[in-house]
Parts: sequence; C-alpha cells; structure tokens
Amino acid sequence: MYFNIERTTTMAPILLSMGTDPSGYIDVTVSGPRQTEVHVKNPHLDTMEEDILYHFSLGTKTHNLPEMFGDIKFVCVGGSANRMKAFAQFIHKELSLPGSTDDIIDICEGTDRYSMYKVGPVLSISVSGAQQSSHRRTPRRSDHGMGVPSISIMLHELIKLLHHARCRDLVLFRIGTSGGIGVAPGTVVITDKAVDHSFLPQFEQVVLGKVITRSTVLDEDVASELLHCSSELHNVPTVRGNTLCTDDFYEGQGRLDGALCSFSPEEKQEYLRSAHEAGVRNIEMESTVFAAMCRVCGIKAAVVCVTLLNRFDGDQISTPHHVLLEYQHRPQTLVSHFIKKRLGYIL
Amino acid sequence: MYFNIERTTTMAPILLSMGTDPSGYIDVTVSGPRQTEVHVKNPHLDTMEEDILYHFSLGTKTHNLPEMFGDIKFVCVGGSANRMKAFAQFIHKELSLPGSTDDIIDICEGTDRYSMYKVGPVLSISVSGAQQSSHRRTPRRSDHGMGVPSISIMLHELIKLLHHARCRDLVLFRIGTSGGIGVAPGTVVITDKAVDHSFLPQFEQVVLGKVITRSTVLDEDVASELLHCSSELHNVPTVRGNTLCTDDFYEGQGRLDGALCSFSPEEKQEYLRSAHEAGVRNIEMESTVFAAMCRVCGIKAAVVCVTLLNRFDGDQISTPHHVLLEYQHRPQTLVSHFIKKRLGYIL
Repeated sequence: MYFNIERTTTMAPILLSMGTDPSGYIDVTVSGPRQTEVHVKNPHLDTMEEDILYHFSLGTKTHNLPEMFGDIKFVCVGGSANRMKAFAQFIHKELSLPGSTDDIIDICEGTDRYSMYKVGPVLSISVSGAQQSSHRRTPRRSDHGMGVPSISIMLHELIKLLHHARCRDLVLFRIGTSGGIGVAPGTVVITDKAVDHSFLPQFEQVVLGKVITRSTVLDEDVASELLHCSSELHNVPTVRGNTLCTDDFYEGQGRLDGALCSFSPEEKQEYLRSAHEAGVRNIEMESTVFAAMCRVCGIKAAVVCVTLLNRFDGDQISTPHHVLLEYQHRPQTLVSHFIKKRLGYIL
Repeated sequence: MYFNIERTTTMAPILLSMGTDPSGYIDVTVSGPRQTEVHVKNPHLDTMEEDILYHFSLGTKTHNLPEMFGDIKFVCVGGSANRMKAFAQFIHKELSLPGSTDDIIDICEGTDRYSMYKVGPVLSISVSGAQQSSHRRTPRRSDHGMGVPSISIMLHELIKLLHHARCRDLVLFRIGTSGGIGVAPGTVVITDKAVDHSFLPQFEQVVLGKVITRSTVLDEDVASELLHCSSELHNVPTVRGNTLCTDDFYEGQGRLDGALCSFSPEEKQEYLRSAHEAGVRNIEMESTVFAAMCRVCGIKAAVVCVTLLNRFDGDQISTPHHVLLEYQHRPQTLVSHFIKKRLGYIL
C-alpha cells in the first residue's frame, strides 16, 4: 500500500516541477469514489510492537482502538477546546443521539494539550486542552493561531489513530475562525486551495533537512457539497475561495500593530489586494499542513472557517462579543448540516 | 529610535549576504553594556491611541503597565503553564520574597492561551493556558512542541508589554525540554546559536509575502555566565551547543514513528550525525524565532533546555516519570542561580 502510487487528476501542474520527495509519496493519494481507508505512509509502523499516541494518552496495546473509534465517519478539528466540546454537544442534539450531553467526556482528559469528544460517528478534537473555567471578555483573536507545528503533531497522531481503528470513508473538517479579505465579517469561507505566502497551493515540509513540497488542494466534491448545504441554511453566508496560511499573526499577515512592523499601511493594503486577486478570501494559520497531510493520506478533507473581520477595513476586531459568538457557530452549523445530509437525517 | 541602526560585532557574516529586509531592521540591535531599553521596531505603535495586548488581556489604557511591570529584570518563557507557575513559586522561595506562594496569581487568568506570574523582578510566562487539574501519567512528549507561530504571537505582545512598561536591562530566558543529540538524557543545553534545518543561525520570516532572514545568534555574555553558574551547582550537567529548531515533531526531527515517514533508520542516523557535527546538541521547536525577535529588539536572551532523551538512541522516552520531572527542574535551577547571582543573593 505504501508504494501504491496513483496521481490525482486535480494536482496543480506547478507541483510536478517543485521540490523532491525521497519517498515518492507526494501527491500519491487515491481520490474519487474508490477512496476508503486511511493510508498511513510509514512502513516502520508495521514493525512497531506498540504504537503509543502520546498526546492522546492512547495506545495500540492499552486500548481497543477499532472498538473505540472504528465507526467514525466524520472528524472535526478546531483550535478551542470549549468550542469543540460545544460542537460535540450540538451534534449530539442534532443527531438525536441517546443519553445526555452531560455524559460526553473528554477522551484525552489525561492530557493537557488536546481534547477529544466522540458522539456517534463524529469525532470532535481541539488542539488546545480543555479549560475548567473561562472568564474571557472576548473570543481569542488568534483562535485561528494555533499554528502549523501544533496541528501537525496532532494530525500525525490522529491519522495513526484512524488507521489503527480501521476507519473507512472518512471526511475530515477543520473548522475555525479567520481574518477575511474582501468579504463581510461573519462570512464562512470553504477553502478551495490552502495557499502559502506566494499564493501557491503548496506546503513546504522539511524532511531530514531537505525541503519537499506537497499539494494543498482540498476535496472538490466535499467543498461543492458544503456550498450546496449553505444554500439550504438561513444566516450562514458562505463563499468558496482560497485560504492564505501564515506562520505568523503579525508581519506575515500584514498587521500594523505587532512589536515589529517594517511596512506602511499602503504596502499592507497592496499585499492584501494581491491576495484577493489570487482568490484568497481568508487568512489563518493551519490550513496548508492540514490539507497536505490529509491529501497524502487519502483522507477527504475540508477547511471551513468563518471570518471575524474584513482585513481591508482594519487589523482589530470591534464586533460585539455576542455577534462574534454567533459567527463562530456558523461553521459548526454548516458542517452539522453536511453530516446530517450524509447520514440521511435530511433529504 | 526606530532608525537608530548599530550593527553588532557578533553578527554572522553569512547573514549579510542573505535575504532582504525592507526596513533595515535586521541585525540592528545594540548589544553590550550600553543596552538598556526594549526596542520595539514599529513606528505605527506611537500613533495608536490604545494598544490592547489581546492575548494577555492587558492594555495601555486599562492598565498602568509601568507600575505593574516596570521593575522586571528577568523574563522566563516556557511551554507548560504548570511548570511556569512552579517556576514562579520556586523563584519566590529562592529570593525569600514576602507573602505566600499561594498568593501568586495568574495575571492572564482571563485568557485561555497564556499564563503569566510575576514574583519580584521576575516574570514567568507560559505559552499554554493554566489547567485546573492534571491527571497526566507522563510529561508531554512535546512540551518542547508549542511551535514557532505560538511563541511568536506571545513574543510580539510580551515585547510590546516590556516596552510600554519601560523595562530596562532585561534578560529573557526560554526554558524548556528538548531532544538531545549525543548528550546524556538530563543534560542542560545552553544555546549558542539557534539553527534552522540547514544548521544555519538564521530565521526566515515572511513579511508581506517576502522572505527575510534574521540572525539567531544569542547573547554570548549571558551564555557564558550561565555555564559558569552550572559549574557551581550539583547535578545540573550542562553544555553549550547549537540548538536545531524545527517546525515539525516527526519528519522534521527524523522520527520514524509518525503517520508519514519516507526515510530509513540509517538516513535518520546520518541526519542526526550531521547535525551533531554542526555543533547541534539538542532539538526543539521555538528557539530560532525567540532568538531572532529578541535580537532585533535589543533584548539579551538565552535558551536553556534540558534534554529528555538522546536521539542517537531512539525516538521515544523510556525514562521513569520521576526522573523526567527532576530533569525538567534543571533549567529552572540554573536560571534561578543566575538570577540570584545577578541580584547579589549569591556572591
């Protein structure tokens, strides 16, 4: 399976000439209706006596992963533990599952990094650990700021978990918040391509000191289906567009209010305009590695982020708290609708 | 002040020929005994009516920052909230400060991202929010995995905070854990240069889509002083060396147990060997941006990380929990000794 190479038809031509991948596992995912299993791309895993998923406090010897997770069909990844717990409770209600939402436990309670909730065929995971209390005045400005390294560690273990659990026909969603470019605050952006700072649909991964390039094109069918879902919902304004992924919240996103800023307001606007011309409709900090890893492992994936502000109008969020909370619920509403349709709850 | 350019004598020549910095603020820090203030490098800050430090829940209008933070001389940054609280309590005791350690409060309690404790002239900050409870069986494998984007957001706000508070003559430490290369587990590594995947002492920062390169050479005097301090301590084996900073815990660090692995055990060993030959003694995920930002802003800085394993011997940690806890205390002990000497508690 490791060398079962089949190129997708949607691969961006530019990627064929960029970087080198010693394994040949760049852009080798099987897409289309035949996709079923999660393809872990590591031949060494089969030789390991036990695989301990450290950050989840789970392991192949200590837990029956197929029994615990084998029925999962949808995985939602987000940055905020509280929000992902709320999403699990929301899905529980939407799917009319038995039992109380109070009984939904954090499977990763033993860790202080990730939170994980399972409700029926849906797994909800956050990259930050659960908090006992929250006195925040406003939502975090960088809920969309957990960053590539953080989500990458989680994805490695999540993909191994789904592989060990023998999950099939999965859809993986990243839901979250973002800064918008040329769209009204509150707009949900379904990502076509996650793009880097040059607006190219690629992720540069360092492997043993060498830079390789992976495609970040997301699943066309899931994106179309999500957009169709949005048309059936009230109050979830949605567009498809490219998503700019940065490693930095300030200089990389053209903010004027960091400790370091070497550019003028005009240069900032010019950069945002060129992003918009390249089809970028929002900015966040995880989508490229998310898209790249899912694609390599043959997992259909989507990035669904709501915009909290229009960066053409400023760097800071002035929208009232209760409005922001409503915005943050929109990606959840959309993905929930998608799941209900897929499961036949809605015709 | 923004254009007060003075080149340091320790700048690596290689950086003079690499990248372009539109502002000219690469390698313009003032070092040596004349260094006093924190140099925020953003001319726009002066024109802002209010600067809200979102992730700290602090602001220039809502808080008297000079009164709250003006006396700070040492700042310690770490990944784990529990560990940074323990560090604050430890320092409180070591400096024989008045009051109870129970009274040390999290200044960022209102946020779920960062924790901040102030004890006398020492500020202790974590990049992860405080947890109410922890049932972890073992320390997190990637406490050294918060990543460049996470620490970068925090550093922008921290540096602005120190600037607004008019702090002077600061030393900023990053303390934490790391993977060792060719050193025994438990060895503390004082970083000479934070190096990238090519073992070069540089950090590539994207500014409005353009890549600029910043030096990651750390303060020579502080590193020497720290090494001298270690010689006065029992059971804190310490070396100076370079620190490899990666954006990824698995492929970037040559681990064989991720969801993706395209290299052989021999290729992995070869990469680790070449790192060792380049002077690298440990690997973590934050040091380059930490070193680069401190250097640009004229803050004397040091990276002090203990190694939890020797990567030549494997990828996973098998050391007992209580031993790991003792290891994790070593950077704290060393930095505490440094602080006590600087403050005249120890002659």
